[in-house]
Amino acid sequence: MAVVMSQDDMRAHLAQGDLLTLREALADLHPADLANLVGGLPPSEAAKLMRALSPAQQGKVFGYFGPRFQIAMARHIARPDFARIVTDMSHDERADLWKALSPDQRATLLPALAQAEREDIRRLAAYPEGTAGAAMTSDYATLAPDMTVAEAIAHLRAEAPDAETIYTAYVIDADRKLLGVISLRDLILTDERRSISDLMMLNAASGRVDEPLREIAERIATYDVHALPILTDGERLVGIVTIDDALDIGREAGAATLARFGATGALQGDDLDMRGSTLGRIFRVRLLWLALLSVFGVVTAGYIAGQEALLAEVLILAAFVAPIIDMGGNTGSQSATLVIRAMALGQLRLQARDMWFVIRREMPVLLGLGLVVASLMATLAGVGQAITPQVLWVIWLTMLVVTVTGGVLGAVLPFAAKRLGTDPAAMSAPLITSIMDLVGVVIYFAIAWALLGPVAGAS
Amino acid sequence: MAVVMSQDDMRAHLAQGDLLTLREALADLHPADLANLVGGLPPSEAAKLMRALSPAQQGKVFGYFGPRFQIAMARHIARPDFARIVTDMSHDERADLWKALSPDQRATLLPALAQAEREDIRRLAAYPEGTAGAAMTSDYATLAPDMTVAEAIAHLRAEAPDAETIYTAYVIDADRKLLGVISLRDLILTDERRSISDLMMLNAASGRVDEPLREIAERIATYDVHALPILTDGERLVGIVTIDDALDIGREAGAATLARFGATGALQGDDLDMRGSTLGRIFRVRLLWLALLSVFGVVTAGYIAGQEALLAEVLILAAFVAPIIDMGGNTGSQSATLVIRAMALGQLRLQARDMWFVIRREMPVLLGLGLVVASLMATLAGVGQAITPQVLWVIWLTMLVVTVTGGVLGAVLPFAAKRLGTDPAAMSAPLITSIMDLVGVVIYFAIAWALLGPVAGAS
Repeated sequence: MAVVMSQDDMRAHLAQGDLLTLREALADLHPADLANLVGGLPPSEAAKLMRALSPAQQGKVFGYFGPRFQIAMARHIARPDFARIVTDMSHDERADLWKALSPDQRATLLPALAQAEREDIRRLAAYPEGTAGAAMTSDYATLAPDMTVAEAIAHLRAEAPDAETIYTAYVIDADRKLLGVISLRDLILTDERRSISDLMMLNAASGRVDEPLREIAERIATYDVHALPILTDGERLVGIVTIDDALDIGREAGAATLARFGATGALQGDDLDMRGSTLGRIFRVRLLWLALLSVFGVVTAGYIAGQEALLAEVLILAAFVAPIIDMGGNTGSQSATLVIRAMALGQLRLQARDMWFVIRREMPVLLGLGLVVASLMATLAGVGQAITPQVLWVIWLTMLVVTVTGGVLGAVLPFAAKRLGTDPAAMSAPLITSIMDLVGVVIYFAIAWALLGPVAGAS
Repeated sequence: MAVVMSQDDMRAHLAQGDLLTLREALADLHPADLANLVGGLPPSEAAKLMRALSPAQQGKVFGYFGPRFQIAMARHIARPDFARIVTDMSHDERADLWKALSPDQRATLLPALAQAEREDIRRLAAYPEGTAGAAMTSDYATLAPDMTVAEAIAHLRAEAPDAETIYTAYVIDADRKLLGVISLRDLILTDERRSISDLMMLNAASGRVDEPLREIAERIATYDVHALPILTDGERLVGIVTIDDALDIGREAGAATLARFGATGALQGDDLDMRGSTLGRIFRVRLLWLALLSVFGVVTAGYIAGQEALLAEVLILAAFVAPIIDMGGNTGSQSATLVIRAMALGQLRLQARDMWFVIRREMPVLLGLGLVVASLMATLAGVGQAITPQVLWVIWLTMLVVTVTGGVLGAVLPFAAKRLGTDPAAMSAPLITSIMDLVGVVIYFAIAWALLGPVAGAS
């Protein structure tokens, strides 16, 4: 944890080529802290600093960087050194790096890798982004069902898998079909002479290579397991996704939900990221949303412009367009947030029963909110400006209807999005706001015509 | 995984009191699946079904329910049975239940518990919600530094801690001061005669009892550990937070960020939850936000009403209030989303350097977005309605200025919130929208007076 050397001292030693002092100073640092230090340097200096680390440290530290920085550093690392680092990386991170390399870079790297690594990389890199197959590692321990506990422990000692993956062993038959699962804890606590097939847990939770990662992470959380075995359609074991990965996946899923709800989510590919996305990409994704919302806005403006007769008569109506359309967007965003959140936590599913549950719960709340806020707004408006009672009634009634309509729409839209196969959070707050703008002004002028129309016509 | 019995069959057996058939059918189910089954029943029936489970299953299943359902069930469970269930629960979940019990319920339960459990509960329940102390468990394995590996393994076998907590052992001295950490993997892979003090890792990552849970979860993810030891100020070991907990904490932190950004977050206590929060609480929290936003809205309306002279002259200006204020809110929400997301992922911190980084990155994007959207909006407006060129210039210039202003405000507000010690996501999309309404109309009419004022005055 303790940083032994300041970044300036580090760069000074680096400039002098004094790698020995650096190696000693950095020997006890955790790879995460090392990555933090190294990642703050320009790629060329970072590559030089890597040489001061022990070979075992290099592979671990390298895995902490994003593919972009990894590739930038790789340009400054000798090919054999780079091949060794890649060999030492964890299998899933290695596959991610591979996907980010250009065909040229791949061709340079490939001959330097051992046959086993080459096949492993190709196999893992073949699964589409966001599936269990793309995130799994092929680094796990397997046992045969006819082993004794003593033999199993001896086998694990000989294989010496990673710390992440030693604690659960997978019992497979000759075809790699998954028969059962056994934990290192059970092996340690049991009589050495018992047989694995007696002790292993049958029907353990598992996932399939083509399942979305978010579901895999949820299953790991639900069943409190340290890793989930990943199977092909033929029930063959092809990898595991560990709880460490589930932690990262959960974090990214939360970030993606927020990004989409804030209208910065991409329709395809990664969502926008302040640090990672290029300016061009940030511009394009945001523009897509803003342009779409502007078109909504022009339609709304056109509708208001069409109400000229009424507006010319009762000009004060124009002043309340803003708070009324906001109200619909705000209740709508609130309702959508609650539904999207409950869906992300697995509390609500795409089924009619759950949608009705939401609407039944929302209705009394929305009516209550509408009544209180409509009265508040009408009172404040009446105190502040010279407004006729009829116009106050229009404002009151509109606020009530818009609050309830906005809330119901906000609650239903995430279900609609999920039905269409997209992320419920794609019903972003700005989108709901823009839809409710148009709905809000239509309601507003309909109520205004109904209550004020005769007055306007009579004058 | 496989559900062996339909819920109807289950309730039929339950009504007949046929617990034996139920016990056999449910024997192999995972506690998470059992909890799913049991949790779907009314509390009285759920309590009856619990009796069909083996004692070992009961404690595990019970831990999966929320405190509200636990308490409802407890009313239908005999006191000695309930005491046994509570004793078998995991330590942190037990402390959570304790906090939710009324003083009466506590007084009933307490005499039935063993002394050790009573002290454990009281100690864990004393830490404030949301801190490491409140989420940690006191169920972990400790070793002495002078043990050999063989002695350490024998000690672990004798203590037989939970699956979650056996894989890392904590080396402490006579005062419970944490000296080092050693993994079961290292114990298994090493020569049996070596000493723990030689093998243990010094300077392992740790947390303090009063640290926020979110930071603890982040540290678990950063250092890829299965559990984080939690220390008091005197460096004494008092508990651990496991990676399982980190998974739940991360999920809840993501949900809380979304809830706050959607203006459904509480200022204090839990954020709103569609399933869990009472209608009264949902109403109060939402009303607080909507009322606040309505006050903004009335101020905006008052400002627009004050522009009567200009509006009466150029009525078409009223029509474009809606799309213009939306634009500011939408870019503002986008910028805020990107900043809040980057803060939640630990990419941005509360420091001047990071704020300038954001503004430098946002500026070119916002100018580009403003130019494109302003031109789009002015073109669409010009095609659709009979509008003078001067008014089109007003719309174009306003859209440009509002887009840039909204984006900068949205990017800066989360920093301001964090500076004030609140969650950056408390700068919710609706709040940013409402602030930008007022800013937007002020900009709009200022530009309109500047460009159209003489025309209006001349007529």
